[in-house]
Amino acid sequence: MKNLDIPKVNFFYEELRNRIDSKTKPLGSLGILEKIGYQIGCIQKTVLPNVDKPRCFIFAGDHGAAVEGISAYPKEVTPQMVLNFLQGGAAINVFSRQNAIDLRVVDCGVDWDFENYNVNTFISCKIRKSTSNYFEEDAMTKEELDLSLQNGIELSHQAKEDGVNLILVGEMGIGNTSSASLIYSKLENQPIRSCVGAGTGMFDDLLEKKKQLLQQAFDKHTQTSNDVMSVMKLFGGFEITTMVGTILGAANNEIPVVIDGFITTTAALCACKIAPNVKDYLIFAHQSAEFAHKKMLASMEAEPILDIGLRLGEGTGAALVYPVIVSATKFIQEMASFQSANVDESCV
Amino acid sequence: MKNLDIPKVNFFYEELRNRIDSKTKPLGSLGILEKIGYQIGCIQKTVLPNVDKPRCFIFAGDHGAAVEGISAYPKEVTPQMVLNFLQGGAAINVFSRQNAIDLRVVDCGVDWDFENYNVNTFISCKIRKSTSNYFEEDAMTKEELDLSLQNGIELSHQAKEDGVNLILVGEMGIGNTSSASLIYSKLENQPIRSCVGAGTGMFDDLLEKKKQLLQQAFDKHTQTSNDVMSVMKLFGGFEITTMVGTILGAANNEIPVVIDGFITTTAALCACKIAPNVKDYLIFAHQSAEFAHKKMLASMEAEPILDIGLRLGEGTGAALVYPVIVSATKFIQEMASFQSANVDESCV
Repeated sequence: MKNLDIPKVNFFYEELRNRIDSKTKPLGSLGILEKIGYQIGCIQKTVLPNVDKPRCFIFAGDHGAAVEGISAYPKEVTPQMVLNFLQGGAAINVFSRQNAIDLRVVDCGVDWDFENYNVNTFISCKIRKSTSNYFEEDAMTKEELDLSLQNGIELSHQAKEDGVNLILVGEMGIGNTSSASLIYSKLENQPIRSCVGAGTGMFDDLLEKKKQLLQQAFDKHTQTSNDVMSVMKLFGGFEITTMVGTILGAANNEIPVVIDGFITTTAALCACKIAPNVKDYLIFAHQSAEFAHKKMLASMEAEPILDIGLRLGEGTGAALVYPVIVSATKFIQEMASFQSANVDESCV
Repeated sequence: MKNLDIPKVNFFYEELRNRIDSKTKPLGSLGILEKIGYQIGCIQKTVLPNVDKPRCFIFAGDHGAAVEGISAYPKEVTPQMVLNFLQGGAAINVFSRQNAIDLRVVDCGVDWDFENYNVNTFISCKIRKSTSNYFEEDAMTKEELDLSLQNGIELSHQAKEDGVNLILVGEMGIGNTSSASLIYSKLENQPIRSCVGAGTGMFDDLLEKKKQLLQQAFDKHTQTSNDVMSVMKLFGGFEITTMVGTILGAANNEIPVVIDGFITTTAALCACKIAPNVKDYLIFAHQSAEFAHKKMLASMEAEPILDIGLRLGEGTGAALVYPVIVSATKFIQEMASFQSANVDESCV
């Protein structure tokens, strides 16, 4: 991976602060919305922040470890859902259509041939058909890791060229909640059992089985370093590492990025380990129902917008809150000031 | 007030439940969204719930008690903000434009003459220019209470005639957080101090002063009955009682209603006291920063969608989450089923 310049955002922007505080509303009364609008304005270096050209990437990939029984769904569901995305029938399609979000489906390593599906929304960044099984060996090689990161970065460069001013990230890959749990555990020195949740549907006994399996996978690789490149290489998958590249590329292009759920937050954490300034560009869509997500968000000092028990992935949380993020920019653009509307400011 | 028939919603609707559960997503993975979509489908008695014709009412009124220093803003701000609404410069205007919400500003008792402002968005339901000061006497007479309730009901009847399928309620009135606190305290036998928050900006010493003032107001009327009609009559304001009428009227017309913040939740509580079936029609937009709102929502078993520190009023929280409520209906309308998309269901 080439070295990327990721500029620190200057969050001291008095003109924007004054503009927000002069609006006809009690000071700070739009809560987190004011912070998000300010953040976007600081990133875009304008008092008129604007996110009217959003693009959502769904990164899809298969996992060699899926054969071990770590998911509630068989691995065939990954290509089946990718086809569903391409045919417009998934939740992310519905929310993207509703909110005029340009949706792109990125095949990073799905165990299926999509050659006949060169619809507009499909992008091939395929490394190979599924990662290797980390119960036996590293999920990918150093070269594959580098290539997937570079692929992801290129997607953001292309988005910049296309005039995109907000990137949303989501994912699909049977088994990828387990990869995310393992990455989080290893990177942050958290006991693996405290990083495992139900994913798409491993409850009760199945959850206990998943914990035991991931403990085995974790224990097998105690000798592996916990630096971010080694950890991504070890546990994969290609959809996660490609997404890490896209998040890095977005920050490099000074485009804010909306992070969806647990797996995308793990990718964001990896990107921040590579380049801490990435943090300045992140907007956290929601806190999911996945067990460890709350802890991870707290450790990243994230303030997620929604907390409504989502656990679907695909970028659905990001697409759902997109209109709220638009609101965070629109109030700054359009609201009257106390002066222009002849409204008395607080008398106390 | 005439007796209104408010039908209990039948929440056993197997065909709708099956439709939701057949969608290509893990069971229940859209969290609260699934509950809201189901609720709307049950109210509308259709497996294709739809809220594409929303109308937001801002109920505005002045409070005689405002002269006592219970708000951070002078009472002149009520008409000033109403003019701001009519000119399109307030936060609720911005969010309504963004989300194509039909916004109506309802003068229930503002201390100003709006005769020259017969723009499309303005509706006069004026009782008189401000309630009376409850530090001295009841805020309104029995006749005024009845008239304001009836006015509110009529607004919902008109909305039904216009094909509106979702009603959003908001408010503006300097001093109305205090009325809401007093109503909540009296109705639910909660100590008044535990029902008082900062409103639009009464922090620290000012908050303590507000608590003392409202304790005095409360103590003055210990002889008044705590039945809902007496309490509304006692503490007002006209914007709250008119809103209670609109909520009742919405339920009577089987239209779901989006409740905004603390003051609108108080109105919803009053409506539920009058007719408990109203509860079935309510969607709670957000949990505000106002101190007692969380407690009130919990006691109503509400699951608010957003919790992002809003404390602006006007219906802004309702308008902000409107697109999320649309998403709750769209996924039911548009998503593919496991069968139609050839996706394997969970194998566990």
